[in-house]
Amino acid sequence: MRIGILGYGNLGKGVECAIRNNPDMELAGVFTRRNPESIKIQTKGVNVYSADDMIKMKDNIDIMIICCGSATDLPTMTPETAKHFNVIDSYDKHKNIPQHFKNVDKAAKQGDNIAFISVGWDPGMFSLNRLFENAILTNGKDYTFWGKGVSQGHSDAVRRVDGVLDAKQYTIPIDSALNSVRSGENPELTAYTSHTRECFVVAEEGANLEKIEKEIKTMPAYFEDYDTKVKFITKAELDRDHANIPHGGFVIRSGKTGWNNGNNQIIEYRLKLDSNPEFNASIILAYARAAHRMRKRGLTGCKTVFDVAPVDLIDMSSEELRANML
Amino acid sequence: MRIGILGYGNLGKGVECAIRNNPDMELAGVFTRRNPESIKIQTKGVNVYSADDMIKMKDNIDIMIICCGSATDLPTMTPETAKHFNVIDSYDKHKNIPQHFKNVDKAAKQGDNIAFISVGWDPGMFSLNRLFENAILTNGKDYTFWGKGVSQGHSDAVRRVDGVLDAKQYTIPIDSALNSVRSGENPELTAYTSHTRECFVVAEEGANLEKIEKEIKTMPAYFEDYDTKVKFITKAELDRDHANIPHGGFVIRSGKTGWNNGNNQIIEYRLKLDSNPEFNASIILAYARAAHRMRKRGLTGCKTVFDVAPVDLIDMSSEELRANML
Repeated sequence: MRIGILGYGNLGKGVECAIRNNPDMELAGVFTRRNPESIKIQTKGVNVYSADDMIKMKDNIDIMIICCGSATDLPTMTPETAKHFNVIDSYDKHKNIPQHFKNVDKAAKQGDNIAFISVGWDPGMFSLNRLFENAILTNGKDYTFWGKGVSQGHSDAVRRVDGVLDAKQYTIPIDSALNSVRSGENPELTAYTSHTRECFVVAEEGANLEKIEKEIKTMPAYFEDYDTKVKFITKAELDRDHANIPHGGFVIRSGKTGWNNGNNQIIEYRLKLDSNPEFNASIILAYARAAHRMRKRGLTGCKTVFDVAPVDLIDMSSEELRANML
Repeated sequence: MRIGILGYGNLGKGVECAIRNNPDMELAGVFTRRNPESIKIQTKGVNVYSADDMIKMKDNIDIMIICCGSATDLPTMTPETAKHFNVIDSYDKHKNIPQHFKNVDKAAKQGDNIAFISVGWDPGMFSLNRLFENAILTNGKDYTFWGKGVSQGHSDAVRRVDGVLDAKQYTIPIDSALNSVRSGENPELTAYTSHTRECFVVAEEGANLEKIEKEIKTMPAYFEDYDTKVKFITKAELDRDHANIPHGGFVIRSGKTGWNNGNNQIIEYRLKLDSNPEFNASIILAYARAAHRMRKRGLTGCKTVFDVAPVDLIDMSSEELRANML
């Protein structure tokens, strides 16, 4: 399977790394909207091309992984690319998924290609686990906790505060809320009552720290309803202690079974990730494998993680799977 | 969807209860090898039939759930029944699954039916999560912990000891082993070093308790390699405190990503169940729904949880799923 990468940011780099752990795949090329000569990739013998020249490589690429931003890039880029390639994206604007699906489905069918959208862990594996949990425990309650991890959106919001040079924001599940769910108490929770937020802030010299802290803590939508901690550190400390992009979270369903629903049953799916983009990249490659197989069986149009039989994700035969994993 | 239950033990009763939580299903009949008149079920207006008369009901049942034992019943009963019905079983002898698959596949194809084997949580959801985890983290290590829960096989083994009237055995994961895995230390573990066993024993009056305890703790295969605790209690205490069938466990994969595999990523799937058979029954009904849909699309032969696209498990349309769960 020959993989193309469109966009060489954190996710694109993650896909490049993940290909090394999938012997049935190879990197066929990296495509960028920047000057290709400005980009140095790690894989020896593979070229960087201008995104404008992509279509010339049509016959050399089985699956194109689109590693660009959900806010402005993917809504147009995924349908455009799906006209010419089998594609995978990680579109994460939950509310707009139905519209994105429609656009991508039309383009992919037009090009006789298969296109997966919203592949990663959220949306993606979290969604899939929510589906499994709801299919099994039809009478129950869903819980999602995020973290401990870096939220890019919240970090950006802190950086926009006057007097802030740099910042990183961690979302942290509240232990007591998590334990209450796990013990089957079925509490009523909101995002506010199940998470705290912690900000590590590098301030400009002479900045009014009290004012910055107040501005962060009262920021509507982002922080005002949360228990938020603000810690001022030096740029050197930020670079030393907060360079990574860890993340994770929990998708839990607590449900009732029995004639009078007297028994509680809890399903929990948990991720604890050192690197958020590298994990998303690893998921994407499993679905690239499925896309390749499904396209070979004649399937086209837009698909999601809900549409894939698990057997298609892994580099093992059905016989091997039944003998070793069932 | 009209469901038949073959065998009215703990699992069959669980299926009967679970149907109440699935409005798109109804119980069409319970079939037994015992005298049908000796069995009283909970669902009003539904009859109990002799298993011998099953075939007469062929046109009234969409999916037959076979709720009998893996050791002696299912190897012959599932292929026999699959000649006449779409079936689901929960065959759990991992080693013999390939042979069972072959037998059931042949019979189901002969009858133009679809047949799912080994549906439940282990095998079943544990297997499925192992597959997902391995497909995503191709470079990693698998861990499985069982419990805290009642092991039927080990409880039976204790009951066979001379001087024992009744007993219940709990399998318990060792916290330090679990925490080591969760922290990304990737320890080398065996079943022995990751679980303890706790036995609650009702002894005959005047029995030699010391001898019983020693016999349990040194029992080959079952206990000798484990840290085993034996507690003697009264029959009244056993009935009061140990009447339920709780179980659960953890399927964890700890894997490496990154150019030099420098980042650790952990996926954990956890179950905490008040009732083992009722949870298995809930899983089985989700796969009964999938079986029904897949058969309508013309699929026949033997299938496992690996072969089902998640969308087929749940009573929601693809559009609803994308809008609400992705």
